[in-house]
This record gives sequence, structure tokens and C-alpha cells, in this order.
Amino acid sequence: LAIIERLQQDIEFLRNCSEPCEAGTTRLSYTNEYRKGANYIKKQMEDAGLAVREDSVGNIYGLLEGRDPYAPKIITGSHLDTVRCAGAFDGMAGVVCALEVARMLRDNGERLNHSFEVLGTIEEEGSSFGQVLLGSQFIEGSFGEKELDLVSSNNGKTLRQILTEYSQYESPMPACRREDKIKAFIELHTEQGPILESLGIDIGIVERIVAISWLNITVTGFAGHSGTVPMNNRQDAGIGAFNLIVDTNRFVKENYAESATATIGQIKLSPGSSNCIPSKCSFTVDLRSGEINNIEEITRYIHSQALCIEKQCGVAIDIRIASLKHPIQMDKQIQNLIKQSCNELGYTCKQMNSGAGHDAMIFARRWKTGMIFIPCVRGITHHPEECVTWENMAIGTDVLYKTILHLDK
Amino acid sequence: LAIIERLQQDIEFLRNCSEPCEAGTTRLSYTNEYRKGANYIKKQMEDAGLAVREDSVGNIYGLLEGRDPYAPKIITGSHLDTVRCAGAFDGMAGVVCALEVARMLRDNGERLNHSFEVLGTIEEEGSSFGQVLLGSQFIEGSFGEKELDLVSSNNGKTLRQILTEYSQYESPMPACRREDKIKAFIELHTEQGPILESLGIDIGIVERIVAISWLNITVTGFAGHSGTVPMNNRQDAGIGAFNLIVDTNRFVKENYAESATATIGQIKLSPGSSNCIPSKCSFTVDLRSGEINNIEEITRYIHSQALCIEKQCGVAIDIRIASLKHPIQMDKQIQNLIKQSCNELGYTCKQMNSGAGHDAMIFARRWKTGMIFIPCVRGITHHPEECVTWENMAIGTDVLYKTILHLDK
Repeated sequence: LAIIERLQQDIEFLRNCSEPCEAGTTRLSYTNEYRKGANYIKKQMEDAGLAVREDSVGNIYGLLEGRDPYAPKIITGSHLDTVRCAGAFDGMAGVVCALEVARMLRDNGERLNHSFEVLGTIEEEGSSFGQVLLGSQFIEGSFGEKELDLVSSNNGKTLRQILTEYSQYESPMPACRREDKIKAFIELHTEQGPILESLGIDIGIVERIVAISWLNITVTGFAGHSGTVPMNNRQDAGIGAFNLIVDTNRFVKENYAESATATIGQIKLSPGSSNCIPSKCSFTVDLRSGEINNIEEITRYIHSQALCIEKQCGVAIDIRIASLKHPIQMDKQIQNLIKQSCNELGYTCKQMNSGAGHDAMIFARRWKTGMIFIPCVRGITHHPEECVTWENMAIGTDVLYKTILHLDK
Repeated sequence: LAIIERLQQDIEFLRNCSEPCEAGTTRLSYTNEYRKGANYIKKQMEDAGLAVREDSVGNIYGLLEGRDPYAPKIITGSHLDTVRCAGAFDGMAGVVCALEVARMLRDNGERLNHSFEVLGTIEEEGSSFGQVLLGSQFIEGSFGEKELDLVSSNNGKTLRQILTEYSQYESPMPACRREDKIKAFIELHTEQGPILESLGIDIGIVERIVAISWLNITVTGFAGHSGTVPMNNRQDAGIGAFNLIVDTNRFVKENYAESATATIGQIKLSPGSSNCIPSKCSFTVDLRSGEINNIEEITRYIHSQALCIEKQCGVAIDIRIASLKHPIQMDKQIQNLIKQSCNELGYTCKQMNSGAGHDAMIFARRWKTGMIFIPCVRGITHHPEECVTWENMAIGTDVLYKTILHLDK
């Protein structure tokens, strides 16, 4: 079984690999703090008897040779970078639990048939390059030499320039794994939501990573003085927008409470004075669902409701799809093995969708991929107070261990 | 009758007294552009045979001595400062029409019994000192020596420091007119709203300047990831706020369409990311009505509706009254004289409230005060496209002239 003290020691070390920040952990990719955290994990991999490698963009691996040199590899891990002022579990939990699985294999004298790799990816959060899932896209091969020059960080340096400095003491292997034989990729991650905790369930088995659609909506009205334009003469862009948001929220709650989400996280009124009737209101809508149909239906509703509100409020409404990502299916066989492992260990589990994006959605383009969710206290994430209990970390590790043994058969 | 060419020449000169700006006129108090505009008006006053004076805070007067040196004075005018990127009529119209009345008196050889003063006030808009109606408050006497040191501009200088430079070539008279005998103050101003134009009416006679209440409302919920928190588990501060705004807007439209306004001009979501459920939403409510009762009723409605939304959305709502100004009654006798003048001249008129604040509301604390509104194209104000037709400028001047003759009797 997983040893809590080891999990705890790794997590606490990584929690403290942070640049100074208000609260929590800030460990952005390619910083000195990131190097310190990566080197710590590499040292732990080594101590666990793994052959340590770093690839050309900074992803790190610990390899445990299997008995069959021709068998495809089993890889498990998650990301090591954080958002600003993050908690200590998002990403890290998946790396630390994978590392613990390697230690358990060693402790138990368990020799796998397949080679087994622990993976820590870099730049998943997109905090520095305006581009999420960067490290995994180099591994999967969608990104390559070209992107080293095309992708540049917030401070203007290209990824290639940054890597020259970051990897100067390393002799990295190529990042792309397309030519490799890979049997499966499994990512353990905190749920980042409240469902497992609220239902008292130990493990989430991800069926799909949801489809994500971002809409940019702009409502245009006519500005005016707050005191001199009667209520019925107004073309108030704000009121048009607020009505559309309230209607959309009600529609999604009533019809897709369990199967889709709609979130308005940004809004801007122009001119933005308390004594001006807004002439313009821009806001974002983040739509997510395991079923692309739901997103299409909700988008159609927004369009038709916008037509009503245009008439009702005397405004013009422009709706643009800023991005649309289709849902990503996790491998059914891996889902079943995770379920079987939970049952054998006596843990409760639930099949569910992931509302957040993960490296697993990149790997799933090419390899059999699965995800294990562990409960997250109050669903808090991307926040200094993010928390996973040590018990749940251990349960997750045990399920991951068992699943890998099943995969190895 | 008023001569359109003279009105036009004055307005066009003032329109061009502007610091460089994107569009329209920017003439902030105590700037070189303001000095240029004030000096132009002083020159016009002089040419019209008025005795020109500037007071210690920069308000300017042109005095036409009456036959009776013991009779109280009749004052008419408005402000000469603008907001940034303003039109050419807000404030200026009232000064230019008053100046034209003085010219008409001279042209017609009309000698008034009372002394007559044309007034151009400074710093009405509050663009530089975070304090509206500054010049008029010095005239009325609510502001005095103390405020010269207490009030400071956006760039940190006190009003006293600014005046030292601004008035260096002047020998100003004291600003406070409390000890003077003043019979009446009349301010002609653009309506700044669409009512007169939409009804095809020539002149608005202000009954009251409305009561204004500013509420600061903060809704507090619980942040979360847009994809991982199901719709029914959310405490979305934004959705709480949007519902309260939509309900308030509907309530005011249904119950106070003609008698009150409610405007939401500023809103802020925190943390403000498109993929974050907002933990906090702050917004302003600008409530206006001729009847303080209406404001109290609407405020009570907002409070009671907030209680429902707190339960419904799982949020906490904090409502603060940031400012509350009672309605200001214009003098009934002056209203009647304006009406009589319109009737005699064959112009249509309508008694109405002013939804905007004006220097007149300061003068009304101490003297008999009235306001004449002239129609404003499409109700556009505080905007480069603000427009009043020359015909309406002339009609307003003729009504003002007639009203002053009646007052003089």
C-alpha cells in the first residue's frame, strides 16, 4: 500500500518550490523554482530505481525497464507547473502518486512485464505562453521544431531561447514520442470540483473530457445620461446583456443541470460610469458538456433568445464562437480496469466527465488514455486553499498501482 | 429677437477652445483653454456694454446696472467647463443665450429696473476635482476659504495653489454672494434627454431637480472552475448580481416608467477570468426621481429582492447607500413667468423634472431659482455629437429674454 509520509514529503517539498507570492505556490515553467522542483522529482525517481531522463522541452521521465523489451510502455503522471498562487495538488498529485507507485513496485519486488514510466510534464497551465498543454503537445508530436520559434513567453522570448538557458546542464532526449510503442497513458488528477466529496465517493473514473465552447458576446445599445433618459426610451446595452445572461443561466439549469455548464466570468460595460447608460456590454460565455449536442442546443438557445432581447431592449447582439473543442473520449478498457481495481480494493467509484482540460486529452489523440480523479476538498482549485486529504492521495495511489498491474497482464 | 449668427459665433468659438482630444471639446477648469474661453466671453460681455468681473475662484460676471440701485439683482447663466470629449452646448448654451439677452436689451434700448448679470460658472462638471458644482458652491457660500485648501485636483494641487496661477493677471472680487440682494437666478440648459424632442415641444420648464441616490452593491459567492462545478452546486456571485439587476430594472419600468430611473453603469466581476465562476460582483445603482418616496420604495424593493436572491443563489448581498441627494424644487413664480413667456411668444412648453444636477440646485438653497430647458438632438449629451439646433437656441434665448422682462416688472 501507498505510504502517506512519502506522499506528504513530496507534496510539501513541491509546495515550497515557489517564487514569492501572496499565498500558495507559484511555480511557472522554466523558472528557477521550476528547475528546483523538477530536480527534486528526478532525484526521487533515481532513489526509486528509475532511469531518469529529461526531454528537449523540459518534460521529465523516470523509466522502470520491463521484462519484455519489445512490449509497449505504460506511462503515468501529470504536470509539475502551477498557475499563480496555486494549491499544492493540481498536477503535482498525479506526479507524486505515480512516483509512489514506482516505490511500491520496488518495495513489493514487483517486476512488470511492460516498461513503466513516471512522467512530469511542463507548461500544462499556460501561465507563461498563452498556450495550455504545451509539454504534452510536444510529446504527442502536434508541436515540434517549428513551435520552438513560434511560441513565445509573456516576456517576448521564444521557447527555443528559453530552453537554451533552462536546459544548459542537461543532455535532453527528443520530446516527440510518436515513434515509440506506448500501451497506455494514465493521469491521476484532483477532481477540481465538489462532486466526489459531496457524494462521499473515493474515486472518479473519467469517461470524457468535456467539449468546451467559448463565446464572445457584444451587446450594442445607445449611451445616455442616467437621469435624463426615461426608462422606456433606453437602449441599455447592459440590461440587454444581463437579461440574456439570466435567461441562459436559467435555461441551462433547467435543462442541463447535470450534463452541461454555462459560466459568465468576464463582463465589461462601456463607457463604465455609474451615471451613464451603457452603450456597449461585452461578456464571455464558457459552455462545457460531455455531449457536443448539448453545446449546440445551448448556443442555438442563446441565438434565439438574443433575437427576442434585441427587440425588447432595442439593442444589437453579436455572438462569436471564439473557440470550440470537441469532447475527448477516455479509453473504455482502461476505465474498466480502474473500476475493477476500485472494486477489488473496496473503494467506491463513479464514472464522470472531466470539466477541465488535462494533458490526457492530448495523449488520447494517439494512445489509449485514462484518468483517475481523487476528491478535492470543497471543490476548491487554482487557489491557495486547494486541498486533497492524505488518505485520498493514498487511495488514489493504490488504485493507480492496481490498475497498472492489471494493464501489465 | 435673438440673432442666430451671434449665438452661432459664440458657440463655435467655445467649441474650438479645447485641448487636443479624440473628438469634441475638452475644456477643463483652470486650464489655458479655459482661460481662453473665459476671456472670449468676458470680451463679448464688454462689447455688449456689461461691466465685467471675475470672482476669486474664476466665475465670471457681466453686470448691466438697473435703474434702481437698491433693487435686488437678476442673474442668468450656466457653466463654461466641459467634461472630456464633450459637445458644444452643455453649459455653454446657458452662458451664450444669457449673453445674447444682454445684447438684445442693448439693441432694443431696454433699460431694466433691476441690475442684470450674465454668469459663467467654473468647474460644474467635476472633471478635475472629484467634486461637482464647485464654482456655484463658492458663490452660494457653502464653500469658502477652508475649501481652497481642502479641495485638490487630480494632479494633487490644492485649489488655492491652482488659483494663484490661474488668476495672476486678474483682480478678482470675492466669490461669495450671500450678502448680496439677489432677486432670481435663471439657468438655461440643454435638456440632455430625448423628451422634448420626441414630443415636439419647444421649451421645458423645470419643476424639480430630481433626488439622486447612489447604491454600491456587492454580491459575494464562492469561486470555482467553470467546468468542474455543476450548475446546481454553484454560488455564482455574477448570476446573483445579474438577477438582482434584471429584477430591479423590470420593477422600475413597470411601476415608475415616467417617474423614476434606475441605471447600472458600472459592474466588476472577480476574479474576472472567462473560465472562473465569479466569487464577487460589485456594481453601482443610480436611482433618480422627483419624489424621494419613489427612491425609498425602489431601495426597499432592492433589499427585499436581494434576500430572495441570497437564498436562491447561495450568495451574500451587501447594499450601501453611497450618496443620497434630496430633490430640489424650482421657484413656482419663476416657472409661471417662463410659461407665460412661452405662451406670449407662441412656443409650446412642458413642465418636467431635471434628471441631471445643475448649478441651479446650489443657488436654489438661497435664492429664487428657475431653469429653462431647450431640446437636445436625440438626447445625446456628454458626447462629441451633442447637438442643439440654432433655432432652438434662439427660441430659448427669446423665452429667457421675455422671462427676465417679466421678472423685472
